[in-house]
Amino acid sequence: MDEFSFIKSIKPGFYRQSSLIKGINDDAAVIRPTGEDIVTAVDTMVEGVHFSKETMQPYHVGHRVLAANISDLAAMGSTPAFFMVSLTIPSSWNQEELEELYEGMKQLAHLYKMDLIGGDTVSGSELSVTVTVIGTVPKGKARYRSAAKPDDVLFVTGTLGDARAGLEWLLNGEPKVDEDVAYLVKRHRTPSPRVEFAQSLVSLSRLTLNDVSDGIANEANEIAEASDVDLLIDAGKLPFSKAVFRKHPERFEEWMFSGGEDFELLGTVSEEDWPLVEKAARNIGLPVTRIGEVAIKREVSPKVWIRRDEHMEVLGPSGYTHLKEKGE
Amino acid sequence: MDEFSFIKSIKPGFYRQSSLIKGINDDAAVIRPTGEDIVTAVDTMVEGVHFSKETMQPYHVGHRVLAANISDLAAMGSTPAFFMVSLTIPSSWNQEELEELYEGMKQLAHLYKMDLIGGDTVSGSELSVTVTVIGTVPKGKARYRSAAKPDDVLFVTGTLGDARAGLEWLLNGEPKVDEDVAYLVKRHRTPSPRVEFAQSLVSLSRLTLNDVSDGIANEANEIAEASDVDLLIDAGKLPFSKAVFRKHPERFEEWMFSGGEDFELLGTVSEEDWPLVEKAARNIGLPVTRIGEVAIKREVSPKVWIRRDEHMEVLGPSGYTHLKEKGE
Repeated sequence: MDEFSFIKSIKPGFYRQSSLIKGINDDAAVIRPTGEDIVTAVDTMVEGVHFSKETMQPYHVGHRVLAANISDLAAMGSTPAFFMVSLTIPSSWNQEELEELYEGMKQLAHLYKMDLIGGDTVSGSELSVTVTVIGTVPKGKARYRSAAKPDDVLFVTGTLGDARAGLEWLLNGEPKVDEDVAYLVKRHRTPSPRVEFAQSLVSLSRLTLNDVSDGIANEANEIAEASDVDLLIDAGKLPFSKAVFRKHPERFEEWMFSGGEDFELLGTVSEEDWPLVEKAARNIGLPVTRIGEVAIKREVSPKVWIRRDEHMEVLGPSGYTHLKEKGE
Repeated sequence: MDEFSFIKSIKPGFYRQSSLIKGINDDAAVIRPTGEDIVTAVDTMVEGVHFSKETMQPYHVGHRVLAANISDLAAMGSTPAFFMVSLTIPSSWNQEELEELYEGMKQLAHLYKMDLIGGDTVSGSELSVTVTVIGTVPKGKARYRSAAKPDDVLFVTGTLGDARAGLEWLLNGEPKVDEDVAYLVKRHRTPSPRVEFAQSLVSLSRLTLNDVSDGIANEANEIAEASDVDLLIDAGKLPFSKAVFRKHPERFEEWMFSGGEDFELLGTVSEEDWPLVEKAARNIGLPVTRIGEVAIKREVSPKVWIRRDEHMEVLGPSGYTHLKEKGE
């Protein structure tokens, strides 16, 4: 197909955001800020690295790459507003598949009233999708990894390890699809960024958020490092679904730490404000679980600790290596 | 190399833009707008499609992909401020080459006081660079393709066809490098976006700008279509360098229309304001040439016409096909 035609072919008929002055159709898009801060991030997914046609249909690819970007905005407390898409298209993808991919983005964009305001389409040897997202946040309300303080409550939304279990079924599962499989596969293919949860906490004066893209082992270490504190996680308190427990009783614990791509939010908040977090989650029907606390660092460099019974272990960014080594 | 390490490894030690609240190091960057409009665009370059190691060193790749994006901002009348880089890295590129590539971006970013505020690094089978740029423009001063009006002066900055001639030498040239070759190759490898020129016209109430990325045949048609007018180009007035004339007397005319990647600015302005455009260009030492005018459209759909002697011909978006067919 014509190198330049795809993005133009999906040009929206109208825009939803009133702050947009110029969308697709010129050299660049123009936005008139409304007094809020602007938040932006970019993320790339490559076929054969981040997904394959064996485990995802084009629709899921579109959904997931935009969801991953929106999740970054959610982790900043930001409301999504715009996105741009740069597509590298190999000859193995046809127009219909590209439209399906875009449909996956469009459904999610619709949900968050996001406008597609630009992009690029080029040819190449492998499918690659780069999404740039732009959102807004009230002045001074961006949620940083560096905001955690000793004695904060450490919490996480939803359940962990589901997306990894869904991928496992897609790669190695038995043909039979039951309710658990359907749930886990959905968690892998069409994750839900936690935008509403983050937005509902806008009144809190201090809040730390980080989205679970690589696994909480990594994300917890990022918070510890940025805030220069220790995090203590109670292994027994980590939230998991019945589905992941039933399907993978021996592996789900590892996946909770390092499975990744659940796109839940890991955060910290003062003990005083914790009930407000619980209430906000209840109001939108999203589970939130207290999984530990923030502490003054014990050593020179900040660390994440796993507490199990009376026993503490360090949790590195790539996961719970002790458990993995013992094959527990 | 570690999938995530490259963008972090080039994290700037300080930021230049005072409107930046949070740069690299969190889920997303945060910008506090200063009362101006925000302008944004994205562009991808893929090895083997847009460049090859045979004609460009990594430094040039970095320079050119950022220059192409900055050129889009210039064509909106916008001042560059931020950029994000998403890199897909194949095993055939080593750390040193990646650093060189980044150095090419860094030098240009330095010139325009732009800050690197985010990005992504993934592995893949071919090198691909996606750059997102963000700039600012005073409210209501973005320069659209749709602003041209009948009787406007049609102008272009600099000279045309040079970048294509530079590429020609890199692909098929004789080994000897003279001053002309050096000039043309430089125009191909390290183009200069016309930011200063566009900025110096900020006081004009109406101005059309489009940057010459695909060739003025394409760009002129974009203006004609967006503004619903005809453009008349005097073939004899198109500006070319002595170098391109001396090296390619038989092909330079075709390349002026459709060579592309000169990253000059094609624009229209009222007859009354034309002297101000000439003056602004003189002040920054950049040639600007009046190459024709805007007219009421003659037919149902807007068109670009080439005027040569007494004779008019239609110029399609992909170039001067008549000339090419006759082999003139």
